[in-house]
Amino acid sequence: MADNSIRIAIIGARDASEKGLKFAYEVGRLLAEKNVVVYTGGADGIMEAASRGVKEAGGINVGILKSSDLEMANDSVTIPVMTGMGDLRNGVIIRSVQGSIAVEGSYGTLSEIAYTLSYGKPVVGYNTWDIKGLVPVDTPEEAVKRILELINEDD
Amino acid sequence: MADNSIRIAIIGARDASEKGLKFAYEVGRLLAEKNVVVYTGGADGIMEAASRGVKEAGGINVGILKSSDLEMANDSVTIPVMTGMGDLRNGVIIRSVQGSIAVEGSYGTLSEIAYTLSYGKPVVGYNTWDIKGLVPVDTPEEAVKRILELINEDD
Amino acid sequence: MADNSIRIAIIGARDASEKGLKFAYEVGRLLAEKNVVVYTGGADGIMEAASRGVKEAGGINVGILKSSDLEMANDSVTIPVMTGMGDLRNGVIIRSVQGSIAVEGSYGTLSEIAYTLSYGKPVVGYNTWDIKGLVPVDTPEEAVKRILELINEDD
Amino acid sequence: MADNSIRIAIIGARDASEKGLKFAYEVGRLLAEKNVVVYTGGADGIMEAASRGVKEAGGINVGILKSSDLEMANDSVTIPVMTGMGDLRNGVIIRSVQGSIAVEGSYGTLSEIAYTLSYGKPVVGYNTWDIKGLVPVDTPEEAVKRILELINEDD
Repeated sequence: MADNSIRIAIIGARDASEKGLKFAYEVGRLLAEKNVVVYTGGADGIMEAASRGVKEAGGINVGILKSSDLEMANDSVTIPVMTGMGDLRNGVIIRSVQGSIAVEGSYGTLSEIAYTLSYGKPVVGYNTWDIKGLVPVDTPEEAVKRILELINEDD
Repeated sequence: MADNSIRIAIIGARDASEKGLKFAYEVGRLLAEKNVVVYTGGADGIMEAASRGVKEAGGINVGILKSSDLEMANDSVTIPVMTGMGDLRNGVIIRSVQGSIAVEGSYGTLSEIAYTLSYGKPVVGYNTWDIKGLVPVDTPEEAVKRILELINEDD
Repeated sequence: MADNSIRIAIIGARDASEKGLKFAYEVGRLLAEKNVVVYTGGADGIMEAASRGVKEAGGINVGILKSSDLEMANDSVTIPVMTGMGDLRNGVIIRSVQGSIAVEGSYGTLSEIAYTLSYGKPVVGYNTWDIKGLVPVDTPEEAVKRILELINEDD
Repeated sequence: MADNSIRIAIIGARDASEKGLKFAYEVGRLLAEKNVVVYTGGADGIMEAASRGVKEAGGINVGILKSSDLEMANDSVTIPVMTGMGDLRNGVIIRSVQGSIAVEGSYGTLSEIAYTLSYGKPVVGYNTWDIKGLVPVDTPEEAVKRILELINEDD
């Protein structure tokens, strides 16, 4: 692997607020501008907004899908992976990255936050679960700045 | 399937307190006495204590292992399943049961609590994560009584 | 683990001939009589016949299901595991056992034969794929005798 | 998804002949020149040669790894996915693509051929398993031409 590649997950649910969707979109754009490869669950809501932000900035986003086919992928996924494992794929998303950015989210997102922390990787979060170890952030710029700092500290 | 079978997971970590281990052992015994089939991660700590409680009461416990071989299984697992998926198997444990009993636990246990609630199944917990939807309990007897009630309400 | 436990998979498809179904049923019975724990995919056809043979002989059979719920399990599964991974679970069945008995079968069964041989475990087969390493057998009695011999040689 | 994206797996083992490695490299180059996204197991041998062919032609190749970390990825993987599932990931590779090109290979490759055919997707093969449904080919050019024809026929 080119050891200078950075991979970050944007995690969140299908159901999301307007503010959350805008946040995810902006984070996607900012990460793509820094040549970070973005991983998401590839579906709707926060995942779609994040994928769109990446794609519109000319970046690559990997959609690790629940399904065995492309039907559930959002239109902005550039690299689809069809796991057919349902939400067991949550752990595959997290294993593939160096850190996560959580945006709102329900129990599925909570499982992804738990996996990130279980693997000793950093996770920052906007308006999401209050879990020991997660670093809360307020803006997309802060989310990107903090997660990159935390990933670098890990090296 | 015989539709009268009840399947419950006992979830928790390798690292556990003496009180937690005793709690898991007692819950295992009580569930086995009620002919509940118990599912655990099959490894040490809380999982081992739970398996032992079940086995000593003459019951069946299924160990859904992280590994591809039996080495990591504790001695009291009666039915081993070697997934070789590491902690992606957390979701398989939860999919297989009607409800969960959490005993202490770290981030891995948090992912299992998240999966249980995500699937709309009940989870009770002793000295564990404070998550919306989880029902706290204080004794093994209360844990077993409450989880069985909650499973029946679901039907 | 009690190191005297023997675990064997009976693998085959939903679509099966009358002869194949009878074969799988008889193999299930014979293994149960020898206290072997039988693993199958838990669904219909060969899997159902094998599960039924085991259950009627008073044995334990583990159904490693494709689905996330019990709906697809046949009525004779005694221990269900709901993987929700579809046929990715084929490898989980094979990882869990010491050897396999293939009865007829299509491409899904072929993947299970491939996994068995890939793990260096023995596989015997009745009226199935002609693959280097698979030992052909003609009767249920021969299938059980041969697979037990081959498993013992491995130890 | 952009519905004009084509995704093809190149499947084969770590142990390979010089001819096989050259074949995989050339197939990788040819697919990349046609803007096909290539999926492999991301490891050494045939997988490495295929990844290198793609990368040197400026294309994208997705490495669906057995491991939970990057260590086992070959240097030419451009998009890594760390499954941590070992060879259960064989099915994930095949689910993600529209067809496969097999180059030599042992039992692991046989499981991937089986998955491809089980999903009703086309597979062509060079010096590999003789399985009903697999289309044998002799040159990299023929492999690419035939698999693209067969994928188009499927649409």
